Amino acid sequence: MADYNAPLKDMKLALNHVARMPELAEKPGFEDASADMVDAILEEAARVARDVVGPTNVEGDQQGVQLKDGTVVCPESFKDAYQQYAEGGWGSLQFDPEYGGQGLPFLLSIPVMEMWHSANMAWGLCPMLSQGAVECLDLNGSDELKAKYLPKLVSGEWTGTMNLTESNAGSDLSVVRAKAEPEGDHYRISGEKIFITWGDHEMAENIIHLVLARLPDAPPGVRGISLFLVPKFMVNGDGSLGERNTAGPLSLEHKMGIHASATCVMGFDNAVGYLVGEPNRGLACMFTMMNNARLSVGLQGVSISERAYQQALEYAFERIQGPAVGTKEAGPIIRHADVRRMLLTMKALTEAGRAIAYDACGSLDFAVKAEAPEEQVVERARAALLTPIVKGWCTEVAQEVTSLGVQVHGGMGYIEETGAAQHYRDARILPIYEGTNGIQALDLVGRKTLMDKGEALTALIAEMRESLKACDASLTSQTKAVEAAVAGLETARDVLLTGAAEDELLPGAVAYNFMMLAGYVCGGWQLLRQADAAVRLMAEGDDDPYLQAKQESARFYMAQILPRWKGLADTLEDGSLTTMALPEALFASAWQ
Amino acid sequence: MADYNAPLKDMKLALNHVARMPELAEKPGFEDASADMVDAILEEAARVARDVVGPTNVEGDQQGVQLKDGTVVCPESFKDAYQQYAEGGWGSLQFDPEYGGQGLPFLLSIPVMEMWHSANMAWGLCPMLSQGAVECLDLNGSDELKAKYLPKLVSGEWTGTMNLTESNAGSDLSVVRAKAEPEGDHYRISGEKIFITWGDHEMAENIIHLVLARLPDAPPGVRGISLFLVPKFMVNGDGSLGERNTAGPLSLEHKMGIHASATCVMGFDNAVGYLVGEPNRGLACMFTMMNNARLSVGLQGVSISERAYQQALEYAFERIQGPAVGTKEAGPIIRHADVRRMLLTMKALTEAGRAIAYDACGSLDFAVKAEAPEEQVVERARAALLTPIVKGWCTEVAQEVTSLGVQVHGGMGYIEETGAAQHYRDARILPIYEGTNGIQALDLVGRKTLMDKGEALTALIAEMRESLKACDASLTSQTKAVEAAVAGLETARDVLLTGAAEDELLPGAVAYNFMMLAGYVCGGWQLLRQADAAVRLMAEGDDDPYLQAKQESARFYMAQILPRWKGLADTLEDGSLTTMALPEALFASAWQ
Repeated sequence: MADYNAPLKDMKLALNHVARMPELAEKPGFEDASADMVDAILEEAARVARDVVGPTNVEGDQQGVQLKDGTVVCPESFKDAYQQYAEGGWGSLQFDPEYGGQGLPFLLSIPVMEMWHSANMAWGLCPMLSQGAVECLDLNGSDELKAKYLPKLVSGEWTGTMNLTESNAGSDLSVVRAKAEPEGDHYRISGEKIFITWGDHEMAENIIHLVLARLPDAPPGVRGISLFLVPKFMVNGDGSLGERNTAGPLSLEHKMGIHASATCVMGFDNAVGYLVGEPNRGLACMFTMMNNARLSVGLQGVSISERAYQQALEYAFERIQGPAVGTKEAGPIIRHADVRRMLLTMKALTEAGRAIAYDACGSLDFAVKAEAPEEQVVERARAALLTPIVKGWCTEVAQEVTSLGVQVHGGMGYIEETGAAQHYRDARILPIYEGTNGIQALDLVGRKTLMDKGEALTALIAEMRESLKACDASLTSQTKAVEAAVAGLETARDVLLTGAAEDELLPGAVAYNFMMLAGYVCGGWQLLRQADAAVRLMAEGDDDPYLQAKQESARFYMAQILPRWKGLADTLEDGSLTTMALPEALFASAWQ
Repeated sequence: MADYNAPLKDMKLALNHVARMPELAEKPGFEDASADMVDAILEEAARVARDVVGPTNVEGDQQGVQLKDGTVVCPESFKDAYQQYAEGGWGSLQFDPEYGGQGLPFLLSIPVMEMWHSANMAWGLCPMLSQGAVECLDLNGSDELKAKYLPKLVSGEWTGTMNLTESNAGSDLSVVRAKAEPEGDHYRISGEKIFITWGDHEMAENIIHLVLARLPDAPPGVRGISLFLVPKFMVNGDGSLGERNTAGPLSLEHKMGIHASATCVMGFDNAVGYLVGEPNRGLACMFTMMNNARLSVGLQGVSISERAYQQALEYAFERIQGPAVGTKEAGPIIRHADVRRMLLTMKALTEAGRAIAYDACGSLDFAVKAEAPEEQVVERARAALLTPIVKGWCTEVAQEVTSLGVQVHGGMGYIEETGAAQHYRDARILPIYEGTNGIQALDLVGRKTLMDKGEALTALIAEMRESLKACDASLTSQTKAVEAAVAGLETARDVLLTGAAEDELLPGAVAYNFMMLAGYVCGGWQLLRQADAAVRLMAEGDDDPYLQAKQESARFYMAQILPRWKGLADTLEDGSLTTMALPEALFASAWQ
């Protein structure tokens, strides 16, 4: 099993030459995010990820979690790792100093989060959900709730969860049935929630559940859902813990992967809860949490891809087989062209995903720090547009990368002890949770493109073209490849805008391929920006061979991966025609 | 969990209108394969697959197999299913009546095999390996060996295995180390083999192992490997079973899927064995078995895809969520365009794979029954060319189809009890065993294309163009789409032939994409042939709505899937350039 080593050089190139970290560090309040500080933080996080969190990954998969006497029990090593994480202040980097946070850019927390998910994705979900709870509470909670709950969530002493889904309400939350009855200064919450990640555990002393439920007089549908804070243990006025609330896990799911992340059916039995935000505006509150969670899940796609790549690479150097073409002796399988194809595909896709994800996250910081309102609008729209691409594309790509990771190992890849299979199984949740990729695609074509008549997308295309103009002359053939792909994306935008006006079924039918097309184009653009940065850095005298590797990643991507845009663009021309044609009754006609 | 129902109508269309079954039934010796007989056999097999084998699938996955006292124990239901399979004569359809076979076309056994693998892929591997052993022995064994072992292998009373790989010899068999010492009329075999499918079990009373080993005076490399028959129990002169041979399972692998198929490490400890074929010609003997096994594995790709489709389809009709575009009420998720996209992708890819696989298998029958030697050469070359495409493309496609099967289920797809995850895990072995898909791709570009200067491929392209000419006028736009793709394949052939002459690294670098390109083009061609047949049958008065569904499958494929050929074709232009450029030492440069 390969150790995990954070790809610090690639992270820094993505931060500094794609996601505008140096520019961000000049914003008021971000003075601490100097290049030296960033380096120090990333290096220490890399150490914790490699030495503390990474080694828990296999144990977690093999042991999984158990429900014992109403409490979720996870491997002992998880608790230790979590303690070190909390004590290191790793959960508080980007949060408000008022609640104990370090006030650093959200962007800086991204490579750090990437490391946790690479090291152990099942474990990393717990901090990830907690950070979402902090964001949600910070934006929507009353001052009293914030003062009481935020400091310990920010410090990592407590963790948070997100209770949305019920058995009949998956992608469609309008039918949520959990109830909230007012009682004095609080509410009594009753109902059952499913698929609740880390709904219970003993790694932290308390868990703060954020729960969607309906008030007695609530209108039906999504406009009648409110958000409540439900602690596992009641919190006394002095901050000490009181008795256990009547909220807890009823059972655990048996999943294909992320075995060590407890996926709970949660029962709320007249549990004490507190309203977060306005009554009946719960979904809007939850969405503030969900948008960042979607970026985080996209980032998990990058993380698991990186881990799978490192695992496959180690094997490709170790495994000796017959001589490759052009060599005379048996040697490591990395010498075979087809193995190189697999490894380079993994590498290029992972690096492209990283750059896209970091860049999207950076926009959120720029929006917060914007001096002019129009700048804020632009950065927000940019992040909003990129969010479904990050979530959708990076997690689809993670399926390909982790599958190639298995394939590089040959027969050994199918054997659980090797480790490649775990990455493949773990990765398969990513296109599903936090809004399936079908939902992401609909978000991209609907809310993010049709709703603003393509404005944000048009701005992104213009930005891409600016980048292309500025590229070094040595990258001409790659620049041309990206240019053509950008033009393809522009045509796709027009097909969508025009087609949707004539055919209401078109957006849904083309959404997925539109999202994948946008992802491949963004990937090409970002790798080209990085290759260009590498050329300049080398011209300035930086002789790190990583810069050469980056250029080769970009070259491989443009020649071997980017061309996929053509087939995707072609499918859009078909609109909803062939997708909607077959009558429902005939899907099973071959055996009925 | 959805029952498995054999897609009989699609199987028959593929048999009769793609794979030339009616023509085959006119060949001397195949008179029994009348349309009525074919129907009767397929319908009875469908019943056994649905009622007997299918229900064992989940139990097999959950219970798996155990090694107890040197014997592999599998679920009780497996033994019952195997008994019914053997007693029904299902393992003997295509074999020589001299040894108890039914003398039917190999082609007819293909949909029957497809059904077993759909019903329970882990279980189906046991009959599949046995059939391979029969073929190998029939072609290479002495009359004495054949008389002694074939009848009980053909009847299914005994099963067979294939012992090739050793821990240091995966794709490269030249380093096989197992030894064979002559002793009287037999040999003594010693060594260890890994990844031996169904290497042991108690479903049948004896197991016949075919084992690669080296004679004492054997030259090194692949020209020093011989093939031996090693029975689990010795067979007396009268056919009764004697004592146990010193060959058996040492341990079982823990695999990601096909849990119920025992993957054994086999130990041969001075075990009695008999030479099959000539000394040092073992690999050639094994290849006669391996070629058909490769077709069978490709067929497994079709099988698991079909099963995943049926599972997803049932869920898409059952699962109610919010109203789809154009509807006002909540309804089954199949009404959503993106769910239809997923289901139609699954359906079209599965049907395309079925047609390609059946067609390739048909050529083997035509080769056997050829009257003119040149006809035999042509059919053999056709089957040989299509074999790596069937194995490679159909199993790659099975990854996409089973993954979509998970995705259609949303969160439920990740829960093991749902069943979709099992298909996904089971399918993942297919691109690996019987020669990884990287090996298939090399076979396609090397032995099957470069070695004959593209002759077989050129013939196939010509055959495709003949089909296109004959297509009904109502299919013009689809025909044009296939025409363009065929031209793309032709260009790819030329890129390969020209490029290989100049750059020895090119074939390996382009092989995988070349194989996938060929597969997508073949899929389009075959679906078009089927759509054309459907048009004609409907014009002749056949009003089965399945024929309409087939036309829609073809339409969807041409518009939504076939365009992938363009991106693949583009990548070939790059040759080995970007694949071979990155120095080995720089693959890890981001963290070193």
